Amino acid sequence: NTKLKIFSLNSNESLARELAEEVGVPLGKISVTRFSDGEVRINIEESIRGCDVFIIQSTSAPVNENLMELLIMVDAVKRASARTVNVVLPYYGYARQDRKARAREPITAKLVANLLETAGATRAIVLDLHAPQIQGFFDILIDHLIAVPILSDYFLQKKIDPADIVIVSPDHGGVTRARKMAERLKGSIAIIDKRRPRANVSEVMNIIGNVEGKIAIIIDDIIDTAGTITIAANALLESGAKEVYACCTHPVLSGPAIERINNSVIKELVITNSIELPEEKNSPKITQLSVAPLLADAIVRVFEEKSVSTLFD
Amino acid sequence: NTKLKIFSLNSNESLARELAEEVGVPLGKISVTRFSDGEVRINIEESIRGCDVFIIQSTSAPVNENLMELLIMVDAVKRASARTVNVVLPYYGYARQDRKARAREPITAKLVANLLETAGATRAIVLDLHAPQIQGFFDILIDHLIAVPILSDYFLQKKIDPADIVIVSPDHGGVTRARKMAERLKGSIAIIDKRRPRANVSEVMNIIGNVEGKIAIIIDDIIDTAGTITIAANALLESGAKEVYACCTHPVLSGPAIERINNSVIKELVITNSIELPEEKNSPKITQLSVAPLLADAIVRVFEEKSVSTLFD
Ligand SMILES: Nc1ncnc2c1ncn2[C@@H]1O[C@H](COP(=O)(O)O)[C@@H](O)[C@H]1O
Ligand SMILES: Nc1ncnc2c1ncn2[C@@H]1O[C@H](COP(=O)(O)O)[C@@H](O)[C@H]1O
Repeated sequence: NTKLKIFSLNSNESLARELAEEVGVPLGKISVTRFSDGEVRINIEESIRGCDVFIIQSTSAPVNENLMELLIMVDAVKRASARTVNVVLPYYGYARQDRKARAREPITAKLVANLLETAGATRAIVLDLHAPQIQGFFDILIDHLIAVPILSDYFLQKKIDPADIVIVSPDHGGVTRARKMAERLKGSIAIIDKRRPRANVSEVMNIIGNVEGKIAIIIDDIIDTAGTITIAANALLESGAKEVYACCTHPVLSGPAIERINNSVIKELVITNSIELPEEKNSPKITQLSVAPLLADAIVRVFEEKSVSTLFD
Repeated sequence: NTKLKIFSLNSNESLARELAEEVGVPLGKISVTRFSDGEVRINIEESIRGCDVFIIQSTSAPVNENLMELLIMVDAVKRASARTVNVVLPYYGYARQDRKARAREPITAKLVANLLETAGATRAIVLDLHAPQIQGFFDILIDHLIAVPILSDYFLQKKIDPADIVIVSPDHGGVTRARKMAERLKGSIAIIDKRRPRANVSEVMNIIGNVEGKIAIIIDDIIDTAGTITIAANALLESGAKEVYACCTHPVLSGPAIERINNSVIKELVITNSIELPEEKNSPKITQLSVAPLLADAIVRVFEEKSVSTLFD
């Protein structure tokens, strides 16, 4: 009888701790530090021979540090004779580099999938990939979870009349996600249509769909510098929306993001803990929901070799 | 007829510039920056279709940033239809993690070789690997250059009487290297034998070989925190050496290294530019020699498909 072991690396220890508690196992003993010259030093401090090992790591900033920690840990776990090496990536970094948008660009999202496989990962559990096609970048097994139910449930608690709700996709790529959320909240949908009328003229945001007198909830997978979302919120109010909420799975929130959100017309930003929010990024406008139960359920199903298909995208 | 292209990433641009000049080609046009969230952004700004591309990058500190830059660049070059993708690593980071010294350790030196191959590298050119066995970690072609001739030539210019010279290896692993240098300088060799007499008693340095009245030159591949080398220098003087020099290929020089060297009895430390020395690590005791001619020669031989075997270890 094999054992389930969960190890946390450095990117998101609070989520890993919560997750282990949900699953009902103690976090595996490990030390992940740096040598004097900055090289990653990993010591796994308990036997994992024959075990099903789950490694929790978001490849959020500092992305290269976090990714190398993960690859080196996978190598160590494999060499320590684990039965399976499962990487749990609540946030999958480099996902936006998923195609050659221009000549001679790398496709780093594919590279990362290959690197994980080369290091020895036998399965990946991921959450809201920037593009669902990234699942196909993996030759190993992959479980793709979505956070729409968690985000939707939070808004359901507000008991807003469904007739008043419009779910807004900030771009064409996110319409499917908005559609899923609208189904759960029984609201309608709208789409922000960004266009540059002529070269060197700034973008114009057209809103496709009716937002007049409604409570708008913008949903995106990643909020990074928060430029699009804060401008979109203005456009929604100008088009007659009563209030604007925003939500996303992955709070990248780099550069001016927090300042922009604090100064924006957005009433509340709902995020998950797929990326740990450092102290300095706290904001009274932000509500963080936990994906620990969702991930814990997937881990237990994988361990018990039950289907995780109900959790699929 | 294919073209030779040389690209520099961010770790060691001054060496790359020198190298390109030696080879007689301009450095390839490229921009290697970061997105707002810290992800690597690479733009190759000229066509490389059908070319033999050489990418210059030392995986020195910040090692994870530099390694990811290299892997992503290899991916981009491969996808841009280069004929061959040659990675030139004047310093190969993670080389000291080349075996499981304890249970459940990673073998990161092997992992890195696999990652480079997975990304698409077709050949590697490296300099003074911490252990020559690391060559065997690669399934792609590898050329292993050594800096002993460059370091030796510098000391030859000092016109010291060979009878006065003793080349010192700071540990048993470095005896072959010391032997090679001694042959060039026609001197004798000595070995530092570190031993811990009992547990919890500090190390004792015994010197094997005669250093009495001689000019000692310690040679190592890497000088990192400079602990061993500065203590060894004291031991050599105590054993009657007249003067102590030190030299190494790779000036990692992390943590207290520069302070230790400045305060040590070492008269001069001779290093190469395999790792770029930042301004704050300058020291009047340090002399830096260039490996650009050595690497340029290897690049031209690989390009012209001539043997580089005379440069081998
Ligand atoms: N970390 C990043 N931050 C901002 N933009 C990125 C990042 N990674 C890739 N991109 C760019 O984002 C675009 C893809 O985003 P999207 O159109 O939303 O799928 C591509 O043009 C990429 O060059
Ligand atoms: N970056 C590093 N800095 C210091 N020690 C390291 C580093 N990487 C690996 N090591 C350790 O150095 C030892 C190998 O060094 P050596 O005996 O000189 O080959 C192993 O025990 C490693 O755990």
